[in-house]
Amino acid sequence: MSGSRPFVSIATDFGAAYTSICAGVVYTIAPGANVLVLSDEITPFDVVEGAMLLRQALPYLPVGVHLGIVDPGVGTPRRPVAVETGRGDVLVGPDNGLLAPAADVLGGIVRAHVLENPAYRLPEVSTSFHGRDVFSPAAAHVAAGVDVADLGAPVEPLPLGLPSPVVGDGELSVPVLYTDRFGSLVLGAERDDLAAAFGALEPGTPLDVEWSVPDGTSRTARVPFERTFGSVAPGEPLLWIDSSGWLGLGVNQGRAADVLGLAGARTVALRATGRTTPHS
Amino acid sequence: MSGSRPFVSIATDFGAAYTSICAGVVYTIAPGANVLVLSDEITPFDVVEGAMLLRQALPYLPVGVHLGIVDPGVGTPRRPVAVETGRGDVLVGPDNGLLAPAADVLGGIVRAHVLENPAYRLPEVSTSFHGRDVFSPAAAHVAAGVDVADLGAPVEPLPLGLPSPVVGDGELSVPVLYTDRFGSLVLGAERDDLAAAFGALEPGTPLDVEWSVPDGTSRTARVPFERTFGSVAPGEPLLWIDSSGWLGLGVNQGRAADVLGLAGARTVALRATGRTTPHS
Amino acid sequence: MSGSRPFVSIATDFGAAYTSICAGVVYTIAPGANVLVLSDEITPFDVVEGAMLLRQALPYLPVGVHLGIVDPGVGTPRRPVAVETGRGDVLVGPDNGLLAPAADVLGGIVRAHVLENPAYRLPEVSTSFHGRDVFSPAAAHVAAGVDVADLGAPVEPLPLGLPSPVVGDGELSVPVLYTDRFGSLVLGAERDDLAAAFGALEPGTPLDVEWSVPDGTSRTARVPFERTFGSVAPGEPLLWIDSSGWLGLGVNQGRAADVLGLAGARTVALRATGRTTPHS
Repeated sequence: MSGSRPFVSIATDFGAAYTSICAGVVYTIAPGANVLVLSDEITPFDVVEGAMLLRQALPYLPVGVHLGIVDPGVGTPRRPVAVETGRGDVLVGPDNGLLAPAADVLGGIVRAHVLENPAYRLPEVSTSFHGRDVFSPAAAHVAAGVDVADLGAPVEPLPLGLPSPVVGDGELSVPVLYTDRFGSLVLGAERDDLAAAFGALEPGTPLDVEWSVPDGTSRTARVPFERTFGSVAPGEPLLWIDSSGWLGLGVNQGRAADVLGLAGARTVALRATGRTTPHS
Repeated sequence: MSGSRPFVSIATDFGAAYTSICAGVVYTIAPGANVLVLSDEITPFDVVEGAMLLRQALPYLPVGVHLGIVDPGVGTPRRPVAVETGRGDVLVGPDNGLLAPAADVLGGIVRAHVLENPAYRLPEVSTSFHGRDVFSPAAAHVAAGVDVADLGAPVEPLPLGLPSPVVGDGELSVPVLYTDRFGSLVLGAERDDLAAAFGALEPGTPLDVEWSVPDGTSRTARVPFERTFGSVAPGEPLLWIDSSGWLGLGVNQGRAADVLGLAGARTVALRATGRTTPHS
Repeated sequence: MSGSRPFVSIATDFGAAYTSICAGVVYTIAPGANVLVLSDEITPFDVVEGAMLLRQALPYLPVGVHLGIVDPGVGTPRRPVAVETGRGDVLVGPDNGLLAPAADVLGGIVRAHVLENPAYRLPEVSTSFHGRDVFSPAAAHVAAGVDVADLGAPVEPLPLGLPSPVVGDGELSVPVLYTDRFGSLVLGAERDDLAAAFGALEPGTPLDVEWSVPDGTSRTARVPFERTFGSVAPGEPLLWIDSSGWLGLGVNQGRAADVLGLAGARTVALRATGRTTPHS
């Protein structure tokens, strides 16, 4: 963390005010820091959405200290950790898998330590706001030059338990990761998974999409695979590889979640057209 | 862009996370920049709302590089541009009219260039996130000292196709520009348009307001023209000239869009009281 | 306000864009400032929520100039003020009680002055956006070195008229201060009030909670007092002392306001179990 203006980013599910309190703690301990709120609007308690956001965003941020806090286990014995990456970043947050996919794309985990040294916490630690009392002070001290190893004992961080896509011949079953701001679904499959199921997909190739909503109803749509939103008319659906390499299910200038009735879907099945829907 | 801490603002319809990725790209390329997120919550795809925001806000920001990204045409051949203004700013965004009204109030367009030089884009350009891959790198390089002319060929930016108010004698028909955070409608007319229709309006003068909602129903209200929200009781409507010079239709401490049933109205007709409503 | 990078925070109910215009005004007048948006999403016109936020957050921010703007009286003769605290901060905002609880926890009010010197306002002052035209310029000039006394005449700021809890023997009636982002209710009582009503409450002790919703219906729930969210199962309610010392009524990983039907409740009555509900 050399340099006269160390970079610190913060991503939380806290909303603006509690997130800015974290930024305030960082500035108090490390007045020269350059703090960027990466997001304060992750869906509350959604560790997967937070993990995907960090994985997607951090490669585009300067090397620095990155706070990631989505922490349904605050107040329970889950461990707070700092993870140093191959690129030279330090990721700080709860050890619940949130930081793992980002560490992966930033050169992997070089070392990780538990945040347990009281010198690098606030004097009083509350039971419900470790973002302020534990994570932000640790991040700030690292930004100010403290070595990660001084924070506490070494630890092996937990992975994120992300469901994998199931690839068949002409079929692909993919978990819904989250719904983005535009109402598009981000799906847990990448270009290679598509290729394994369908071979090389030409732009414009339609696929049959099937999903279930929470009341058990099954729904279907025929959706073309396209390179870009602009390839379909406004209001029309498409499948595409999004800007971070995930499969997306969207609607041009519309909210796919609403237009297609996808709210609450956990898994989406894709099939080459002409296939009979198997009994499920 | 002289000075040791060039100023960069960012306004998008992306939400917090994707907007901060843009900020991260700027900081990576121009570490000394001072980046302000002007807004990350423009209504998705609403070019008019974004254009009005930039026009309203940028005169109050330091001279600098201003990213404006509301881009329903991403992935289609619309041009990405940088526009230098008479005040010395450089506006960067899609050439869809978004930047035009702001350029107007910042001293007009001095020159504009297409963003096509690959040296000032990220190495890989996605089809759906030009904010990250095209607009932010260009803005950062300009903030770091690159000349606008080095970005690409000169170009004549497109204007914003904004509907004009229709002025009659004792009548004014005005387009709804957008609904602000407080539920007030911002209307496409200024003080001069009001004067042309109604002469000098004394505070307290009532006007008859008429609008249609999407199901075709016509609605009316009698609303006083006032200088300030505090001039009417809480819950009561008013017309006023807002802080950027536009006509507003609001409710004191309430949401006019909800209280008056204005959701979906595209045009509002104002008439001096005592006029008969014409058949429409 | 010594130091080369004076700290300025901004908390408003304006949303992102109007809040960033305030930040832009600060940067224009005080280019070296370090501006943090503390919140732009206070519930519109909710002075109590804003006051509680400032009281909770400012102790964790660096000493600096702190703009707080929730201003239902904009355009009426309410006074704009700057309040210097014992810690050395200067709080700037409307004199409607918003700043008082924060000043209290920052060492009390040392002196306060009305913002009336036209040299420290923008040249044109609108009737509806004093955040931009009056408060932000004053804050920026103080950050840049202007003495608070130069802003205008000395003044005694108004207190915040916050309802107090009513303590009985085995009973506590508490006002609802606001609902936070997680749907938890923040209640106007602290640990001492609980102790006065119930003695020392062991973790796990259940209390009977009763409230009325706006249609007059009375509702009840039995809720344990716990140290942390993790002490109850997901979906289960709890009472706890939150990270800023207030009594909270929440649901683990859920929205108490929705799960318990608390929307619109103004007061919550707590009783030791086994008590008969008195006629009310």
